Amino acid sequence: MWFKTKAQSLLNSEYPVIQAGMAGGTTTPELVAAVSNSGGLGTLGAGYMAPEQIRSAIQAIKALTDTPFAVNLFIPSPKYSREQEKAFIETGLQLTERYRHKFNLESPCINQVEEDFDEQLRVILEEKVPYFSFTFGLPSADTLKKLNDQNIYTLGTATTVDEAIQLETAGIDLIVAQGSEAGGHRGTFLAASMEQAMIGTMALVPQIVDHVSVPVIASGGIMDGRGIAAALMLGASGVQMGTAFLTCKESGAQEVHKQQILNRTEADTMITKAFSGKEARGITNRFMAEMADHRAHIPPYPIQNAVTKDIRKAAGQQKNPDYMSLWAGQGTRLSKSQTAEDLFNQLIEETNTLLR
Amino acid sequence: MWFKTKAQSLLNSEYPVIQAGMAGGTTTPELVAAVSNSGGLGTLGAGYMAPEQIRSAIQAIKALTDTPFAVNLFIPSPKYSREQEKAFIETGLQLTERYRHKFNLESPCINQVEEDFDEQLRVILEEKVPYFSFTFGLPSADTLKKLNDQNIYTLGTATTVDEAIQLETAGIDLIVAQGSEAGGHRGTFLAASMEQAMIGTMALVPQIVDHVSVPVIASGGIMDGRGIAAALMLGASGVQMGTAFLTCKESGAQEVHKQQILNRTEADTMITKAFSGKEARGITNRFMAEMADHRAHIPPYPIQNAVTKDIRKAAGQQKNPDYMSLWAGQGTRLSKSQTAEDLFNQLIEETNTLLR
Repeated sequence: MWFKTKAQSLLNSEYPVIQAGMAGGTTTPELVAAVSNSGGLGTLGAGYMAPEQIRSAIQAIKALTDTPFAVNLFIPSPKYSREQEKAFIETGLQLTERYRHKFNLESPCINQVEEDFDEQLRVILEEKVPYFSFTFGLPSADTLKKLNDQNIYTLGTATTVDEAIQLETAGIDLIVAQGSEAGGHRGTFLAASMEQAMIGTMALVPQIVDHVSVPVIASGGIMDGRGIAAALMLGASGVQMGTAFLTCKESGAQEVHKQQILNRTEADTMITKAFSGKEARGITNRFMAEMADHRAHIPPYPIQNAVTKDIRKAAGQQKNPDYMSLWAGQGTRLSKSQTAEDLFNQLIEETNTLLR
Repeated sequence: MWFKTKAQSLLNSEYPVIQAGMAGGTTTPELVAAVSNSGGLGTLGAGYMAPEQIRSAIQAIKALTDTPFAVNLFIPSPKYSREQEKAFIETGLQLTERYRHKFNLESPCINQVEEDFDEQLRVILEEKVPYFSFTFGLPSADTLKKLNDQNIYTLGTATTVDEAIQLETAGIDLIVAQGSEAGGHRGTFLAASMEQAMIGTMALVPQIVDHVSVPVIASGGIMDGRGIAAALMLGASGVQMGTAFLTCKESGAQEVHKQQILNRTEADTMITKAFSGKEARGITNRFMAEMADHRAHIPPYPIQNAVTKDIRKAAGQQKNPDYMSLWAGQGTRLSKSQTAEDLFNQLIEETNTLLR
């Protein structure tokens, strides 16, 4: 019964199981293709990628699979005045200067922080990617029209019922309900306070399902067949899973990041703005703990993200988890190291056994 | 299939559905008995009750039902020195003085804040209550022996895997896994930080199930048959539900509290220490917002609880929700006003339909 859902027919995949579009190099073409080839929907997390990198990755995916896949982008943030932006950059650099000392890094010359959304989107339209997923807000009506004209299905992220209603009203095809358990960035874009928009998956999914008529994809804390079966019971038409795929062999996440997830517990993650200026869940480390004291002064996304880039890179090169963004959801104890195909087959078998 | 679980046989109730032991007058004998008579396990939330009040309530429940029920108590907090306690009381009274002005209240004379656990427990033992549930920690070995000698089953609250393991090691019969969605007080007693112990139900339940062999009862955000079915898929043997029962006709919660839950959304709750000194989830109001500025100075439980008692009482008498503790979980949009029996029958019907 469970795979005959609205999402499944919309997704054109055998199973309504989506591999989340984690940004930052995790979603290699090999990972995306392995998930899609196994009967799910793989997603290229292209939020931080330059347009031509996105094109190469899409072409690499197409060479590896004939099945549908998705590309995920970040909806651009509100623009700041040049002066405000310069002030934010200066504050961000000051707050993080001590870490540059630590890694012997020159203070970078950050003049302006650009978001390339229009150019990124153009590649998706030109490459006729079957599914476009997004987070941090809602694309403009113009963007949605272009996607619609190309018959590209859209998946938007909601962390509250009001956000889900706004996505449906705008004509989005599927809504990803992101529970508070989820790793990585919060998709929150309407709620008055980030704290009040931290709704657990168990509570969020049925409330969104009751208020929209498009299919709802549950995400946050889902790591195995038990989570998939539970999400379907809550009324979801499918699931999106990030952390579970991050530790797979094909994932491009750094080995030290994978090992942190594989070896830590459910109580080792926290929400932080320290790395990017936008709230995200990751394994608690020294950088997060120290920056928490300056919480009120951390510049907004994407400025803080640009400011910490060299530090994160240097820490990664030295395999030093203390200063890397180790995004992870709360299901860490359920993570495993295996191929994406093996994980996917297990997910389906476990779910089928539970729902038999 | 779903009602033939380990919990059900341990609970001696027809269905493994527990009405949570909400303190503060919510769990009237009528509510507890209605749930137990319907085939679930009702719980008297006796944490704040004087021993003789507990005895009267237990006798009232026994007059209304022949089926098993539970009584819930709070495990006492670490003791402070007399001097430290006096300093805490003074700080608490200062922080809240403006609210006493508002309600024309005299500054109360709080000399010492007592927790009556031993006397409360004695009533439970004497009355041979079938089930003893608790939160905020673990009873002493001596207490557990006394309960065991009387063949009283024990249910302990865990918010992390490590807490669940500690409960099982101590010989507790059933573990209530309290997800971050849950309303009211957090049961956290081991975690290094309260924030890291805010694990969503979807992530918490399967991880606890994998690490203990006693039955696990899921709680947090469960409001209807969808939530029950989902919890069972996650590996839980049953569920505990608080907010859903709080708005029932038989509940002793104040009408203004019920109306707040019935009319607010999933994004209207927050965790606060403002009312009791211990983190709890409730509908966000003015008192919580204003006291958030003084978070670092709020005295610990149970001192702050004693300090705010007169303010909460006055606000309740004036039906002023701005200064009442409006405990609620994140499933608020799913709450309804009906009898506990009607709710219970719906829960069973919905769950049966989903798991047919």
